[in-house]
Amino acid sequence: MATLCRPAISVPENVLTMEQTLELARTMHADHPQLALALRLIENTGVRTRHIVRPIEETLRHPGFEARNNVYEAEAKERVPQVIYRALDNAGLGVTDIDLIVYVSCTGFMMPSLTAWLINDMGFRNETRQLPIAQLGCAAGGAAINRAHDFCLAYPGANALIVACEFCSLCYQPTDIGVGSLLSNGLFGDAVAAAVVRGRGGTGVRLERNGSHLVPDTEDWISYAVKGTGFHFLLDKRVPTTMKMLAPALRTLATEHDWDVSDLDFHIVHAGGPRILDDLCHFLDVEPAMFRYSRATLTERGNIASCVVFDALDRLFADGGVHDSARGLIAGFGPGITAEITLGRWTARRHAVGGQGRPAEERAAVA
Amino acid sequence: MATLCRPAISVPENVLTMEQTLELARTMHADHPQLALALRLIENTGVRTRHIVRPIEETLRHPGFEARNNVYEAEAKERVPQVIYRALDNAGLGVTDIDLIVYVSCTGFMMPSLTAWLINDMGFRNETRQLPIAQLGCAAGGAAINRAHDFCLAYPGANALIVACEFCSLCYQPTDIGVGSLLSNGLFGDAVAAAVVRGRGGTGVRLERNGSHLVPDTEDWISYAVKGTGFHFLLDKRVPTTMKMLAPALRTLATEHDWDVSDLDFHIVHAGGPRILDDLCHFLDVEPAMFRYSRATLTERGNIASCVVFDALDRLFADGGVHDSARGLIAGFGPGITAEITLGRWTARRHAVGGQGRPAEERAAVA
Repeated sequence: MATLCRPAISVPENVLTMEQTLELARTMHADHPQLALALRLIENTGVRTRHIVRPIEETLRHPGFEARNNVYEAEAKERVPQVIYRALDNAGLGVTDIDLIVYVSCTGFMMPSLTAWLINDMGFRNETRQLPIAQLGCAAGGAAINRAHDFCLAYPGANALIVACEFCSLCYQPTDIGVGSLLSNGLFGDAVAAAVVRGRGGTGVRLERNGSHLVPDTEDWISYAVKGTGFHFLLDKRVPTTMKMLAPALRTLATEHDWDVSDLDFHIVHAGGPRILDDLCHFLDVEPAMFRYSRATLTERGNIASCVVFDALDRLFADGGVHDSARGLIAGFGPGITAEITLGRWTARRHAVGGQGRPAEERAAVA
Repeated sequence: MATLCRPAISVPENVLTMEQTLELARTMHADHPQLALALRLIENTGVRTRHIVRPIEETLRHPGFEARNNVYEAEAKERVPQVIYRALDNAGLGVTDIDLIVYVSCTGFMMPSLTAWLINDMGFRNETRQLPIAQLGCAAGGAAINRAHDFCLAYPGANALIVACEFCSLCYQPTDIGVGSLLSNGLFGDAVAAAVVRGRGGTGVRLERNGSHLVPDTEDWISYAVKGTGFHFLLDKRVPTTMKMLAPALRTLATEHDWDVSDLDFHIVHAGGPRILDDLCHFLDVEPAMFRYSRATLTERGNIASCVVFDALDRLFADGGVHDSARGLIAGFGPGITAEITLGRWTARRHAVGGQGRPAEERAAVA
């Protein structure tokens, strides 16, 4: 039984408040015909603070795609390892216990992926599988959990490390001034997250079932335009209505598992914006308090893309968790429009020998 | 037991011969101080013909990253579906039998990945898992097989579709005129490949074990510089020597499976260049004829990145295959430097009910 252990999160030291964001919008787009609408949309996000890797003055200047991507690489190398060490500590494992690294990030592009550098620099075994995913956007947090779960189902003794590295501020495009872009500029934040899925032992969320759902014909609702200036984020105004279409998929997966989605003990979902959470309450018939961890992430850190589900889950851990065997749902939402959904039970007890990895004979079977 | 069925391959209609490539190099780089070396390196590749998505005149003009990427998307949508249909036919399955699509491509970037469009346009189920991988380069062919194998181990009734779409000609960079770049300009070709890994039934290579190996401290030997003009392929001159470091990993994985890597019945490996094949003969103590399918791919189509292993495997099928239960190795090599290695047995008999997918109760367990 694979267990998603407590994540580790890090946000950068440069803080941007809602007031600063609104003031920037007023100053930079004083003549924008839809400024009032943009300001109202930004206020409605409820995002009070965000954290960004570079100071705001530097973030607002576009130095070109190459320089931006170099900043991405340098900041990732600076910030990712310490988060990984904390996630490994949370799982009671060391680098040599890891069999698969799932690295998700849609805000910079490297080939080889950062996984190669991590293996070399941090001392992971050279046989560690690398699974870099760049094209699932905000849904990649859920996808990473689900592919790690699958891997542990395939190799019951194995351990998977998930790393989510999202520097959304490095995708800021000064020339994009549609209302959707202005809203995005006030919504997204930067963060790094990591979490281990242990094949045996560990405490956290014991993963029981996962599934994916693509909403038909919504490919262009959330997308990147790939240009010489980098990735340009395009957000269709219909996106906030998506939960009406995705909630049934969440309900169906729960039903297939003989669970009632309206009667679960915890929900950890991607908080892309406030409407997602409000609508999920309605369509899943769940109290708003059930989404308090996701909402706290949105309020304090903004939409941190694939990191959201890990940040929200970390808040559940910090809050003392839930009772043993409590049933819950984790879901990432993103381009496609795709939902990546996980069902699991809270596991406070260690089910097997923990703390020091696994016997050598198990590792051989995995490698 | 998961079985890798016969792949389907398609190469574009625009043909470029070795003679044309050499003539272009002579004309365009007449004053290049290392022209003679570049010509000799290109001749040594043994690549007689390549196929490219756009006519050579158009390919040589760089219209900007945005236009290039738009061509990638249009050509992929034009060329990929028919290859998928043929791969499904080869496996005796239909679109609704597929549970996972692994889409590998390092020569264009889309978010959402082409998987969303494929699901919508071709009628795959909306619950189909999407696994797009852009950052494993030429190793992604092997990685796709291995992740599909893992998925079928996790869900024994499941079927995975692999799609590899590589338009290397769309990464041509006129301003890169180092010898490594001139060589690359004469080496890479375009292709689309697809193959199904059936969880039950099917004929082809029954997958038994897979593994990955990263050569320490070689991250910058094969890499992309990401610039406003797109992806710039960087090839270190030490790359051709890599097999000395990777052959032991191939041998080790075989030994762990109680197989002797020098005594296998077939080898399907990534033919990045001629030296890879020559060196593998030496370091694995295998006859050159063992790599004849990989060499034919290189000679007739160039290095078609993640498509190579599928093209070479298709040639083994076309040649009548090997005897039942014959033992073989498949390996992709690429940036990292990473090898993705598969061990399997040739399976000419159908082991279970084939041809019409699987019973409904199995699909429910997977979904």
